[in-house]
Amino acid sequence: MEKQIIFEQVIDMWNKHIAFNSLLGFTVTKMEEEYAEIKFEWQDKLMGNPVQKILHGGVTASVLDMVGGVVISANMISRINNPDKQKVAEKLGKFCTIDLRTDFLRPGRGESFVATARIIRHGSKVAVARMELHNEKGEHIAFGTGTYMV
Amino acid sequence: MEKQIIFEQVIDMWNKHIAFNSLLGFTVTKMEEEYAEIKFEWQDKLMGNPVQKILHGGVTASVLDMVGGVVISANMISRINNPDKQKVAEKLGKFCTIDLRTDFLRPGRGESFVATARIIRHGSKVAVARMELHNEKGEHIAFGTGTYMV
Amino acid sequence: MEKQIIFEQVIDMWNKHIAFNSLLGFTVTKMEEEYAEIKFEWQDKLMGNPVQKILHGGVTASVLDMVGGVVISANMISRINNPDKQKVAEKLGKFCTIDLRTDFLRPGRGESFVATARIIRHGSKVAVARMELHNEKGEHIAFGTGTYMV
Amino acid sequence: MEKQIIFEQVIDMWNKHIAFNSLLGFTVTKMEEEYAEIKFEWQDKLMGNPVQKILHGGVTASVLDMVGGVVISANMISRINNPDKQKVAEKLGKFCTIDLRTDFLRPGRGESFVATARIIRHGSKVAVARMELHNEKGEHIAFGTGTYMV
Repeated sequence: MEKQIIFEQVIDMWNKHIAFNSLLGFTVTKMEEEYAEIKFEWQDKLMGNPVQKILHGGVTASVLDMVGGVVISANMISRINNPDKQKVAEKLGKFCTIDLRTDFLRPGRGESFVATARIIRHGSKVAVARMELHNEKGEHIAFGTGTYMV
Repeated sequence: MEKQIIFEQVIDMWNKHIAFNSLLGFTVTKMEEEYAEIKFEWQDKLMGNPVQKILHGGVTASVLDMVGGVVISANMISRINNPDKQKVAEKLGKFCTIDLRTDFLRPGRGESFVATARIIRHGSKVAVARMELHNEKGEHIAFGTGTYMV
Repeated sequence: MEKQIIFEQVIDMWNKHIAFNSLLGFTVTKMEEEYAEIKFEWQDKLMGNPVQKILHGGVTASVLDMVGGVVISANMISRINNPDKQKVAEKLGKFCTIDLRTDFLRPGRGESFVATARIIRHGSKVAVARMELHNEKGEHIAFGTGTYMV
Repeated sequence: MEKQIIFEQVIDMWNKHIAFNSLLGFTVTKMEEEYAEIKFEWQDKLMGNPVQKILHGGVTASVLDMVGGVVISANMISRINNPDKQKVAEKLGKFCTIDLRTDFLRPGRGESFVATARIIRHGSKVAVARMELHNEKGEHIAFGTGTYMV
């Protein structure tokens, strides 16, 4: 099976079949071996503060964890020989986040947001990604670093 | 105004007027100067994995961030001389998370969950809390460390 | 070979044959499957600040990384079937720190210091330890969390 | 007093009067408002492993903590109105690291090393820097994120 087709199926699974992502409005828009991207729109239910219209810190941490997971999954899948549905499912089934650091740089204000991730450590057991969150004006809202079991 | 009454008002605000907490079902159940506690029940929308019935990593990070914020807010409020509604609102208005580390120890399985926080650094500018997440069987699911601007 | 004898040999290697530990005066004083301890004395060369007589942040990070490594190594060695020198050396040869978080709670003042570690995640690939640094008065100077490849 | 002269005096203090930096051979080579750099050479006493000739994890954490501190100090000093020796000393006297995350990406092999830092959060209370460590071949050995009280 071709890698690109697998990626599309995995994206579809994440976008449509993980309730928490739907709830928050996260959409995986890019999944490459070294880079991934998730977009989402402001919704009042994402608000963390009744006074200020800013993202709840948990939303920021969630999207950074998620987008780091996307790039690392893409990288994992690329390393499978003759990947098929079962091999991919087995591999993703073992995948989990070990630890996540989130640095909140600015209040999470904006109408739409983009979270991006790059892989910084490739490994057969453990991989590390760095993530960023920006709003539609290009303001840098948060940084993340995630360590994942692969 | 008495401290305990203020704490109850702040808890009420968090439990009823922060949409994201309601969405996830987070309920602040204890708010003390050195200790805080949030409880929540399993709901399918908190699932992070279509195969395994476990919490989305973002839910874990969210509740740890939140419970750390509760204990630190309690501590901040306790330091206000003659606190009234306005002083408390001003103080909480400046409050934010600087950074958060989440260590995922075990898959987030369970029917009900309790997140707890203790303050480990008191400061006039910056405070630090350590947090834990357990399920109803007492299994330790995650650890957190959060640095907050006070 | 008995586990306790192996532990003593490994301690001996760390205490006498790792130049950086000798340079800083670190001595492993306890190595158990779930707990480890390193002690060291104040020396002027450990000072991080020409004005205040406090530990350099790097010394604190170093001892926390090291003591976390000790408890996790002990745990790794305990899991080897019929351990001998070669198996232990192979296992330790692959051992490395993946990431380390250090929380500096108080200025590192004191005459003598003790760093302790407990294991919080046992795994066949990745293990996590939490560490603390106290001075001779029992003042809590720093916290650490380390993720290690095993 | 001109900013550049102050920077040179502060660099001089770090390079010559902080014993731990001299011990490890750290030399501050650049100190700018948004960027800093420290260089050091391999020495056997920096070795973390009696078998492999690689840096002790504590050396890596130390240089990352230090170089993050340099860029943030530069930034702090730049914000002082009409800076003089006393104002700078007072400001630096309050400066400390709150927390530090180190991500070890590759074994610390090399003949000479360069640690660099960029500031990612400017604040009147708290600042955040991101750091990197490379060897003379340009291999990326470690990443760091530090939160500092300013």
